[in-house]
Amino acid sequence: MAVGIGILGGGIVGGSLARRLLDDRSAIAARTGLDLELIQVAVRDQNRARSFPTSYATSNPEAVIDHPDVSLVVELMGGLEPAGSLVRRALELGKPVVTANKELLAARGPELFDVAAAKGVSLLFEAAVGGGIPLIRPLTESLAGEKLSRVLGIVNGTTNYILSAMESEGQSFGEALAAAQKLGFAEADPTADVGGHDAAAKAAILAGLAFGTWVQAESVYREGIDTLESADLEEARQLGYVVKLLATAEQRTGGISVRVHPSLVPVAHPLAAIRGATNAVFIEGPAVGQLLFSGPGAGGEPTATAVLGDVIDAARDLLAGVEVTPRLIIGSGATVDLAEVDTSYYVRMVVADSYGVLAAIASVFGDNGVSIASVRQDGRGEDASLIIVTHSAAERSHRAAFDRLRQLEVVRQVAATIRVLN
Amino acid sequence: MAVGIGILGGGIVGGSLARRLLDDRSAIAARTGLDLELIQVAVRDQNRARSFPTSYATSNPEAVIDHPDVSLVVELMGGLEPAGSLVRRALELGKPVVTANKELLAARGPELFDVAAAKGVSLLFEAAVGGGIPLIRPLTESLAGEKLSRVLGIVNGTTNYILSAMESEGQSFGEALAAAQKLGFAEADPTADVGGHDAAAKAAILAGLAFGTWVQAESVYREGIDTLESADLEEARQLGYVVKLLATAEQRTGGISVRVHPSLVPVAHPLAAIRGATNAVFIEGPAVGQLLFSGPGAGGEPTATAVLGDVIDAARDLLAGVEVTPRLIIGSGATVDLAEVDTSYYVRMVVADSYGVLAAIASVFGDNGVSIASVRQDGRGEDASLIIVTHSAAERSHRAAFDRLRQLEVVRQVAATIRVLN
Repeated sequence: MAVGIGILGGGIVGGSLARRLLDDRSAIAARTGLDLELIQVAVRDQNRARSFPTSYATSNPEAVIDHPDVSLVVELMGGLEPAGSLVRRALELGKPVVTANKELLAARGPELFDVAAAKGVSLLFEAAVGGGIPLIRPLTESLAGEKLSRVLGIVNGTTNYILSAMESEGQSFGEALAAAQKLGFAEADPTADVGGHDAAAKAAILAGLAFGTWVQAESVYREGIDTLESADLEEARQLGYVVKLLATAEQRTGGISVRVHPSLVPVAHPLAAIRGATNAVFIEGPAVGQLLFSGPGAGGEPTATAVLGDVIDAARDLLAGVEVTPRLIIGSGATVDLAEVDTSYYVRMVVADSYGVLAAIASVFGDNGVSIASVRQDGRGEDASLIIVTHSAAERSHRAAFDRLRQLEVVRQVAATIRVLN
Repeated sequence: MAVGIGILGGGIVGGSLARRLLDDRSAIAARTGLDLELIQVAVRDQNRARSFPTSYATSNPEAVIDHPDVSLVVELMGGLEPAGSLVRRALELGKPVVTANKELLAARGPELFDVAAAKGVSLLFEAAVGGGIPLIRPLTESLAGEKLSRVLGIVNGTTNYILSAMESEGQSFGEALAAAQKLGFAEADPTADVGGHDAAAKAAILAGLAFGTWVQAESVYREGIDTLESADLEEARQLGYVVKLLATAEQRTGGISVRVHPSLVPVAHPLAAIRGATNAVFIEGPAVGQLLFSGPGAGGEPTATAVLGDVIDAARDLLAGVEVTPRLIIGSGATVDLAEVDTSYYVRMVVADSYGVLAAIASVFGDNGVSIASVRQDGRGEDASLIIVTHSAAERSHRAAFDRLRQLEVVRQVAATIRVLN
């Protein structure tokens, strides 16, 4: 029996999925025993050329969902609306939904999973985090028996591409961004990527999967890469580190900490070797140790592969008539404020080149309970800068120390404060 | 409703699983909604101290399977018999089975999956390949829509540990093996690992998962690491390579090639960085690109985590009363003989130190259709050796060239022939 598929969104991923459903229909049937039949694709502009026959294109997404031959809906429009209402409509009609929309899940996940559970249909989202990298099934099924301690990784390809270019070619953030935009690795409006918003939505979903604690995307602590200077990437390199934008969800005393910010990663760490648009995620637990998953985090074809895997899974469940338990466990565990979490820092200060500067600075750190791991001075005179790496101490203590440093007369500027992975 | 678990085998993995089922019962219930109740563990020696209360231990595995409270059986004895008969017995009673027994699956997979399908119960085996690394679900579910081209990786921790030690400490194979045995990284009888048998069984299973082609473990082309000399690891290093034991299953013209042998891996390749007992597997396809999965390939705790994930999955299916389709697709695709596959080689020869040697050797390669990528001479006089790396050409052509080289008067010995990853 054929399973009719309706796709909402005919962009890069939607187009690639539509083409593969048409071209590979018999190959997919041979491999999986499922006859997946493309019915319609809702697109914004019905007259644009597509990678699939335009006879499948329609401008009415509601009609795709309501189509009697569509029994499974794939949402690839992105954004909160109308995607959210459309996903809800499909679920309420008892049609399983596959989505790659991390923004929607991070904003309205609990509500949508409730509707799916009430209707007993699947709501799958392998492509929402990590693009083509299978992360959701390993986290929710293979590792279901493990009390995980941390999920940590590079989940945004655009920022990793920009950071790799800044590092290898000494470009400024602006130069690297412009080059990435020219090559199609960054959007015309890059805010969602470089500001860390995209990574924060993914971190929220990973936290939900790993710890069963629902975190709103906007309550994820977030710093982007747009304020990073190439001078700091070079200093970091000389100290044996590479700067990466890391998403972290980890169990701490009192709750979980979920955050996105640039971090200095030791060169020998496997994440330091992840370059360009590749994504990589570490999953850690007391029994399983460290697992690393890496691969293409975005792109039409890899993402369409992940979506297609979900479509096959949802179609199987549908034909089997299985009452599906949505795979995202939604609890209400506590989160901890980053201020309470232990961090360590790389700090670059422009300082007066005079005796006693280091003593004054060191006592500020000491007075705030932060101990210094290394000190390095670069340049002399007006350009003298002091680079300090601290040992692990409460974020709150670091912040207090930075505030005090800014008031010191010998410190002309606290030019950079970047956390160090530990 | 509690799901009663019976475990066959109380060794490292079985003991760890039993302890976690007991200690984490309420935590697992909170996370998954499943009440998993340990009923009995079949052990060889009932009087030995265990990591779980001996009241659970019994010496009668049949009684565990037949126990009215046991509704799910975990087989962790290893080996073909009695494990095979016991797994079959459990399946025939309609009890789902979770196993980590790659040897059994590679030898009798089709038969056991047939029984499971006939009875409509699960037969899960996440821990059989890659220990704690989730590979089975990504391959069979997340990537179900992809026509994969290659699965390639380091799937035996013992040999990788030995090779890492040989490389970093310049030890001979014998020295590194003895050290690994002392530290518990190698068995007293290391044949299954160092001869490549363990990796071959895993390669056979990976081929079945990736390509739907069932391959008997004994028909996998296999070379171990026991004949490798540290001199060749050092030469490889100077040429920019690291030697790894790789398992490969790949689509070639005419069928799939499944093989296990040492390979020179370029230092910049991510597999070159996998050291010690860690495993790592690349999964490649035209749409998804390259995915890398790495983590602990063995060890009681990581393996028990993978087994527990399967137990949770099987228990869910059991409670839902789902007619389970076994996840391993068994087709009868063609395999190709390695002789027909393109390979490239590192060749070390002890040669007479005289003019014309290189010309004679080069013409043997040329006459057999193999072109030379690089030549390097080490030492002079009696100890002169010539190291040649070839470009890609049929394995058959390489073999013919090696046979002919052995007959050349100027070649005292063809001391090593190791394939190069390409």
